[in-house]
Amino acid sequence: MKPEELIKLTVCEAAAKIREGAVTSEQLVSAFLARIDDRESQVGAWAHLEREYALEQARRADQVRGFGNGTGPLHGVPLGIKDIIDTRDYPTENGCPLYQGNKSRRDAACVAALKSAGAIVLGKTVTTELALMTPSATRNPIDLERSPGGSSAGSAAAVADLMVPAALGSQTAGSVLRPASYCGVYGFKPTFGLISRNGVLMQSHTLDTLGLLARSIDDLALLTDCLSAQDPNDPVSYERSQPHVARTALSAAPMAPSFAFVKTPAWQEYADPAMQEAFAELKDFLGPACDEIEISGLDNVIEWQRIIQLAENAAYYGPLQDKGRDQLSEGLNARLEEGAALPIRDYISAVASREKAYEALFEIFDSYSAILTPASPGPAPLLSEGITGSPIFDGLWTYLGMPAVSIPLLEINGLPVGVQLVGLRQDDGRLLRTARWLATRLEAEQTESD
Amino acid sequence: MKPEELIKLTVCEAAAKIREGAVTSEQLVSAFLARIDDRESQVGAWAHLEREYALEQARRADQVRGFGNGTGPLHGVPLGIKDIIDTRDYPTENGCPLYQGNKSRRDAACVAALKSAGAIVLGKTVTTELALMTPSATRNPIDLERSPGGSSAGSAAAVADLMVPAALGSQTAGSVLRPASYCGVYGFKPTFGLISRNGVLMQSHTLDTLGLLARSIDDLALLTDCLSAQDPNDPVSYERSQPHVARTALSAAPMAPSFAFVKTPAWQEYADPAMQEAFAELKDFLGPACDEIEISGLDNVIEWQRIIQLAENAAYYGPLQDKGRDQLSEGLNARLEEGAALPIRDYISAVASREKAYEALFEIFDSYSAILTPASPGPAPLLSEGITGSPIFDGLWTYLGMPAVSIPLLEINGLPVGVQLVGLRQDDGRLLRTARWLATRLEAEQTESD
Repeated sequence: MKPEELIKLTVCEAAAKIREGAVTSEQLVSAFLARIDDRESQVGAWAHLEREYALEQARRADQVRGFGNGTGPLHGVPLGIKDIIDTRDYPTENGCPLYQGNKSRRDAACVAALKSAGAIVLGKTVTTELALMTPSATRNPIDLERSPGGSSAGSAAAVADLMVPAALGSQTAGSVLRPASYCGVYGFKPTFGLISRNGVLMQSHTLDTLGLLARSIDDLALLTDCLSAQDPNDPVSYERSQPHVARTALSAAPMAPSFAFVKTPAWQEYADPAMQEAFAELKDFLGPACDEIEISGLDNVIEWQRIIQLAENAAYYGPLQDKGRDQLSEGLNARLEEGAALPIRDYISAVASREKAYEALFEIFDSYSAILTPASPGPAPLLSEGITGSPIFDGLWTYLGMPAVSIPLLEINGLPVGVQLVGLRQDDGRLLRTARWLATRLEAEQTESD
Repeated sequence: MKPEELIKLTVCEAAAKIREGAVTSEQLVSAFLARIDDRESQVGAWAHLEREYALEQARRADQVRGFGNGTGPLHGVPLGIKDIIDTRDYPTENGCPLYQGNKSRRDAACVAALKSAGAIVLGKTVTTELALMTPSATRNPIDLERSPGGSSAGSAAAVADLMVPAALGSQTAGSVLRPASYCGVYGFKPTFGLISRNGVLMQSHTLDTLGLLARSIDDLALLTDCLSAQDPNDPVSYERSQPHVARTALSAAPMAPSFAFVKTPAWQEYADPAMQEAFAELKDFLGPACDEIEISGLDNVIEWQRIIQLAENAAYYGPLQDKGRDQLSEGLNARLEEGAALPIRDYISAVASREKAYEALFEIFDSYSAILTPASPGPAPLLSEGITGSPIFDGLWTYLGMPAVSIPLLEINGLPVGVQLVGLRQDDGRLLRTARWLATRLEAEQTESD
């Protein structure tokens, strides 16, 4: 296969080719490295990447396969790791000068799990400052004048730009789904607690959720299964038998799914008019399979997410101000002060309200397979605006701990915009199955009309 | 049996007598009511108690048994319920005028569970103001000039004074174990999350734990089993198969247990010198079965418990100040203001430190069956001091979510003092088995030396 074909392979495809012997890991990794050589100066997706180290891992993977050893489901496939996730071999600098040269002696649990499945750590992807709002230098590969979103900026940009087939990201408000939406890739934030956060920079123990950026739903499902072992080192990692997300996700839906279109209280003020129109068309297209549903109390949910993130940011990052206030951005310093000054009663009631707020959504799922809602207010903002876009359509589902996926289905002025589907906790497989149904249905429609 | 014998029966004994037909529930309840008639004006243990209603329940229980129906393990046995726990039939006034006449339409989950097991709700027992520090009017039946402790004041006093064989209490710092210690009864605070808190006044979702006051370990075990169903309505209720606490608690220990005597950082400043001496003697008596162990970091644990309780008190009770500040005690108003003004960062780090702090104790349990420590700083304080005593020896284990039992083993100047044993979470049965071993061993010794 030619390098320009190799870089288009999904994780599942690449792993299959390597397994069959049609491609070596070294060929695959070399193709991605060539793409990175070509594009990185413009995109800026990588925080740390050493070609020789990447190739050495690839050659070792080929050797292991050559010896006829059994291989894992990701054998020889390179992945990107957001630079807030510890790796033994690369530094973890958290997008913040205070962590310059910071190296961990251990891989994070999620990295160790991916390596156990045979994956190769290609490099660390750029994050915004401490995975918060201050933009990184990364550009959106779809339009280099635009932001890739944040905070998983490098992961989304690298996957969109064919520099790597998939990457790990993380979401506290909208840091996986928003960049996925802006860069035109799939983003998945599984159920809170599904993927261990052990070895990952903590900004909010109540909200932080690891997630994935990839170019197919099958990849999201496969990677999630590789990452889904319970980990007693993360207090929110819950008991489960193997969730077998892929088995459900890749099965045929027993009946056509139905969708609860939820505008959320952010719609009026935040949603781009073109996005509003695109969703109206999507709803029309789905016909009786989609109803617009009003959920009361979501304004509280948006506010509770905001309060918890602010307060826990202050708790976890506040000590950095003592170490070097001048090495944090002005915006971050202000944010940490805002969080530290929040009334403690508001924070506690925000934390204590979560389970009831989640339970209030149960009955929607008696009638609908998933909530359908935007993944971002519109297409990616211009870099000149100096922002990474608003997570207002994502944060509420993060607070509720529900799995959410962004599907690159819409286009506004030639720019991608994601459709977000949200499912019940611990029902990740069914959510991805529903996402797959929707993507297939829309692609069929687009092919017909072409 | 004579009334004066009936009131001395434990729950297990009374239930057995009723099951065998040796005693009716009506006879039993009548005996307790006579005792209450006799003593209540001095002790003041009951907030709500209607003799006719109690007798009616007893007669109904006797009828059910008379029809030859199957009966639960607590059939016909009266129990006391702390007046912060909702009951359908009695008001729940939380020791606070703002709740005067407050009636719930539903039983709390724990009350429903006890009723399902056949128990009779004799009445509601007095609590301190909102289960906090302001003393109630209850007196210690062992010495009427002394405090019964708090906040489960009425439950401990009623059980100690043979007004009821056992009662429900609750502990956020030391509100079960301290009154048990002062009143000379057994107190048990099971693992955090074992007993559902659904339908119970919330003062701190991170700490509130339901517990029991009784006159035997067998009773604690039986009652715990009756209360141990998982409850999805309490977010901290964890998955379990039937824990069968009694089966383990009543079995013979496969080997003699060993004890880690932990003085805690409170020892020097708080422990009564006579208590220090009594513990030295206890340690000598246990010989090689007991080592004094120093645990580092317990000063932090004490402080974290304090911060969380203060902050969450402010969150849950703060709104009461708007309803009627003047109907709360001065001390409580000050406490709520102190809590509301706490730095949010301190609170969050106190919450976030819990699991690590608990895990740091794991290795102690490789070598020892239980931690041995005081249940209170000494015997009950005089009423004239205007306090309910300090929970300083209890709060740290409440924070850590570990099961703890107070055993009435020591006496100082004729006043009872409890020995506290603390076990691993979800190991409640083994903790009670160890407690039983210790109590039996000491009683044998005392009989010999008599």
